[in-house]
Amino acid sequence: MSFLDRIRECNQVNLRRFRPFIVVGAQVGYVRTDIAALLKYFRDTFDVTREAVILNPDLGDFDERSAAMKPVVEALVEDGAITAPRGELYPVATHFTAAPLMALERAAVPAFGVRAYGVHMNGFVQRKGGIEMWIGFRAKDKPTFPGMLDNMVAGGQPMGISLQENLIKECAEEAAIPRELAILATPVGAITYRTESTDGLKPDVQFCYDLELPGDFVPRNTDGEIEHFELWPIEQVMETVAETTKFKFNCNLVIIDFLVRHGLIPPDDPDYLEIVRGLRQ
Amino acid sequence: MSFLDRIRECNQVNLRRFRPFIVVGAQVGYVRTDIAALLKYFRDTFDVTREAVILNPDLGDFDERSAAMKPVVEALVEDGAITAPRGELYPVATHFTAAPLMALERAAVPAFGVRAYGVHMNGFVQRKGGIEMWIGFRAKDKPTFPGMLDNMVAGGQPMGISLQENLIKECAEEAAIPRELAILATPVGAITYRTESTDGLKPDVQFCYDLELPGDFVPRNTDGEIEHFELWPIEQVMETVAETTKFKFNCNLVIIDFLVRHGLIPPDDPDYLEIVRGLRQ
Repeated sequence: MSFLDRIRECNQVNLRRFRPFIVVGAQVGYVRTDIAALLKYFRDTFDVTREAVILNPDLGDFDERSAAMKPVVEALVEDGAITAPRGELYPVATHFTAAPLMALERAAVPAFGVRAYGVHMNGFVQRKGGIEMWIGFRAKDKPTFPGMLDNMVAGGQPMGISLQENLIKECAEEAAIPRELAILATPVGAITYRTESTDGLKPDVQFCYDLELPGDFVPRNTDGEIEHFELWPIEQVMETVAETTKFKFNCNLVIIDFLVRHGLIPPDDPDYLEIVRGLRQ
Repeated sequence: MSFLDRIRECNQVNLRRFRPFIVVGAQVGYVRTDIAALLKYFRDTFDVTREAVILNPDLGDFDERSAAMKPVVEALVEDGAITAPRGELYPVATHFTAAPLMALERAAVPAFGVRAYGVHMNGFVQRKGGIEMWIGFRAKDKPTFPGMLDNMVAGGQPMGISLQENLIKECAEEAAIPRELAILATPVGAITYRTESTDGLKPDVQFCYDLELPGDFVPRNTDGEIEHFELWPIEQVMETVAETTKFKFNCNLVIIDFLVRHGLIPPDDPDYLEIVRGLRQ
């Protein structure tokens, strides 16, 4: 077991089972063959060919396209292809800062292989003996990855809010970190990966933040998503990431990136260059 | 002009003009067509085909291979294909921590398109008003990139010395940074690029370090390679990188990586994700 195993687990995909999802002439995602078969029944919304799934170009603007996707998502929920709708809308666009072409229910994003974005924050304490990191234990009744380990704060990036405001909101909800502390979080880069999940494809980007916390700060979850937090010596975090799959899959990458940036993985480690490149595939 | 321009300038290559360079059955580099033509005269050393340049597999070990390359390098120097031999040996290997297959004069490394490694260090001072960075002005009589701007400390990675020892040595030679300060430099990742130069191909890796220096520390060059140092506000560094080509090409990438990791390029910059990925191609 190694850090590279965690990176590989986030990059498992066989694209031959997927077809490009085309909106307004541009590819914005990937649809798996079995999901494409279900979309054939929506003849007014999609042109499903052997080569691609094409959203009807007669849907002329953001609102029309978003409205057309709603009954499709409802049908996919009924068919069981999508589980647990979140009631949260994600933008569909060609890239992060491009104007969204339509909105899509968050739980349906992998079914269309649309790139999702999120914010993940490493909360840590610097002590004389070394770095300690706050670890979240996900609630056992959370629909996704129940009971797994998590970064101190993390959340998907919904429409209509900046990355920093989203991070501040998640800091408050997930760990009761006050705004005046949360705004001190430093953006430090991004990790990218592309992996298959049971509900489709996740070609995702997570923007990473570091926040050094005062030694006496104790986080407290307010939204029921995290059961409790523990402050671990960084060596325990490293061992858990390298040797187990206890962390939610993408949280491993956020931690490995932290370890690289803070000099905790030495550059003469035989895997170093593969790790550095593997975090951004 | 933008940070992406600097990244693109470090990744300009037309591989159709190159052939793989094969040593002991593995590709270790690329040879440009015109250089391959010169190598044909060394029939005992190379098999030059349309598809590849293959080192004679009868050269049975490190010493034999290294010795066979010596007269080749001398001839290439005479032909003007290699300028300014350094008298410094670089390892040729399939990857950084693999056993070297042979040694090669540093100045000949691009002619064989062999991956070279180096260490680059951002030396900075944290003040109330923000970060300041030490900038090196390369000597006007330096054979490579005379008069250009440079990171505070940087050097190629020769054989038989660890990355950290090399950095400590370069810290002493280039900026008179004492060992007890140099060992505090943090390894923070690596940048990679692949670019053509007049003398061949540079598919290089630079290991990056950060060193926060005391506010009263003043560097002093001891080996004649740096003419003088200046301490610049980080805004001036950013503007110079974004708007000019005054820095030696790869130093720009080391600084851009610093700017990302220290939150000085905001993640909602439209180029952010392309920058983050572009630093490791």
